[in-house]
Amino acid sequence: MKDIKEFISYNDIFAIHCGISVLEVSPGTATVKMTVQDKHLNGLKLAHGGALFTLADLAFAAAANSRDYVAVGINATISYIRPAGMGDILYARAREIFSNRTLSGYSVNVENEAGELIATFQGTAYKKGSIQTHKRKAGHVHSSDSP
Amino acid sequence: MKDIKEFISYNDIFAIHCGISVLEVSPGTATVKMTVQDKHLNGLKLAHGGALFTLADLAFAAAANSRDYVAVGINATISYIRPAGMGDILYARAREIFSNRTLSGYSVNVENEAGELIATFQGTAYKKGSIQTHKRKAGHVHSSDSP
Amino acid sequence: MKDIKEFISYNDIFAIHCGISVLEVSPGTATVKMTVQDKHLNGLKLAHGGALFTLADLAFAAAANSRDYVAVGINATISYIRPAGMGDILYARAREIFSNRTLSGYSVNVENEAGELIATFQGTAYKKGSIQTHKRKAGHVHSSDSP
Amino acid sequence: MKDIKEFISYNDIFAIHCGISVLEVSPGTATVKMTVQDKHLNGLKLAHGGALFTLADLAFAAAANSRDYVAVGINATISYIRPAGMGDILYARAREIFSNRTLSGYSVNVENEAGELIATFQGTAYKKGSIQTHKRKAGHVHSSDSP
Repeated sequence: MKDIKEFISYNDIFAIHCGISVLEVSPGTATVKMTVQDKHLNGLKLAHGGALFTLADLAFAAAANSRDYVAVGINATISYIRPAGMGDILYARAREIFSNRTLSGYSVNVENEAGELIATFQGTAYKKGSIQTHKRKAGHVHSSDSP
Repeated sequence: MKDIKEFISYNDIFAIHCGISVLEVSPGTATVKMTVQDKHLNGLKLAHGGALFTLADLAFAAAANSRDYVAVGINATISYIRPAGMGDILYARAREIFSNRTLSGYSVNVENEAGELIATFQGTAYKKGSIQTHKRKAGHVHSSDSP
Repeated sequence: MKDIKEFISYNDIFAIHCGISVLEVSPGTATVKMTVQDKHLNGLKLAHGGALFTLADLAFAAAANSRDYVAVGINATISYIRPAGMGDILYARAREIFSNRTLSGYSVNVENEAGELIATFQGTAYKKGSIQTHKRKAGHVHSSDSP
Repeated sequence: MKDIKEFISYNDIFAIHCGISVLEVSPGTATVKMTVQDKHLNGLKLAHGGALFTLADLAFAAAANSRDYVAVGINATISYIRPAGMGDILYARAREIFSNRTLSGYSVNVENEAGELIATFQGTAYKKGSIQTHKRKAGHVHSSDSP
């Protein structure tokens, strides 16, 4: 899983722009991390819904691409449970709920350091083909490329 | 609606960090804009799912707070339809689907300059109280503050 | 579109059990109808969330199978907006939001006779293959068959 | 929890119409059961998406009303994972993901007798008030009554 972890860490520019780092990727799971900084805040000085979504989405994308195929996100749902503020260290952990021939589904929990649930996220991915096929074309593919 | 447009434009730091601008807010609707730049790209050099979500979420937050009460996002769903790439100018337009005593719902379309649908988004908001009440406390409230 | 309308009308036993009739199917759209009866009520004597979902789901399934391929539902979201009660005549109208090589998406509005919105529903379908291929196997396929 | 179990068992007419029985309700959780019969089938002779949703929705409604307040469903999402057919015995188990002052969220797994996942469901409920208040008005309230 070193491949996908390194690939995202160096090539996912929006994740870097948002200060998200990939901690761990195993077959079907992934953990990513973001410390809430100024740049993540909304008008109320709380972590922005878009920043929380992006954190969860990255865990989803890493987990969905943790096996020998390339997968793209087709849709996702997020529920906001508890606000997060400046300095909070947030972890998003994705686990695979199902995986069949063409689709896979992931559940992601976003938690703070105290283990309190900040948001829950569910994402569905479409399997585009083997990594080999795609490497020949364009490199890894993940969230928000169209099926 | 000048209030909410200006409030978001100057106080939503994550929106500013993502290069999103608020074009228009009317009662129940809002339009926001983002030109896809380097910083929005994922590993395949397409607009990141998190950036598309954030764009749609901002239109949702603006529309949900376009009347005389403060509303917070409780959950949202996004479907990715067509990829967007470098230089694409994206617009997210939110419209109110319903609004009752405690909740309101919005549908957001993300389109490119050619009017092609990039993503669809649905968000539900919870009404926390009058703007007056909240101004006395903490300023406007929007997405991802907890109900 | 006579095919899919008749197919559902005679073969979708759960739809018949729920008293849902298919009014119209055109490429990408469908309208179905249900009059709220005793059997649709929950403990508060309002139309049950499951009955409203089933009504919307049938419009989705009909619209998703209105072209020359067979599609199966992969996920769906419903928002409850306004209650419906005994005797209310409800219509669910599905329209296609997108359709690419492998997936299609539909938005369904459930309204009462007064045109008031009762629920909104979004569904995503996966295209399994041509109708010819499937007819040879098992007849039409729709909602909740696995991709 | 005898109250809510009995209340649903005798008063939720659509659940009875669908052959769903409530097995167990504890604070924050509930288990319900449905054996797939003729009446649950779609045109492919598989359990209908609407029947699977209704099963999950009932577990959600029971869990959401398992404490000393009345809650109504505001929205829900379902993912179809694996088909179910005639004779399959299905269980839906709901567990509480969060509960704050006004909202609560539940995750429901629908499984067959072999423990295989058939569908996953997430529902959000709005707390309307204490059971006492509502008993004086109209009896228990659950899914799809408007907030």
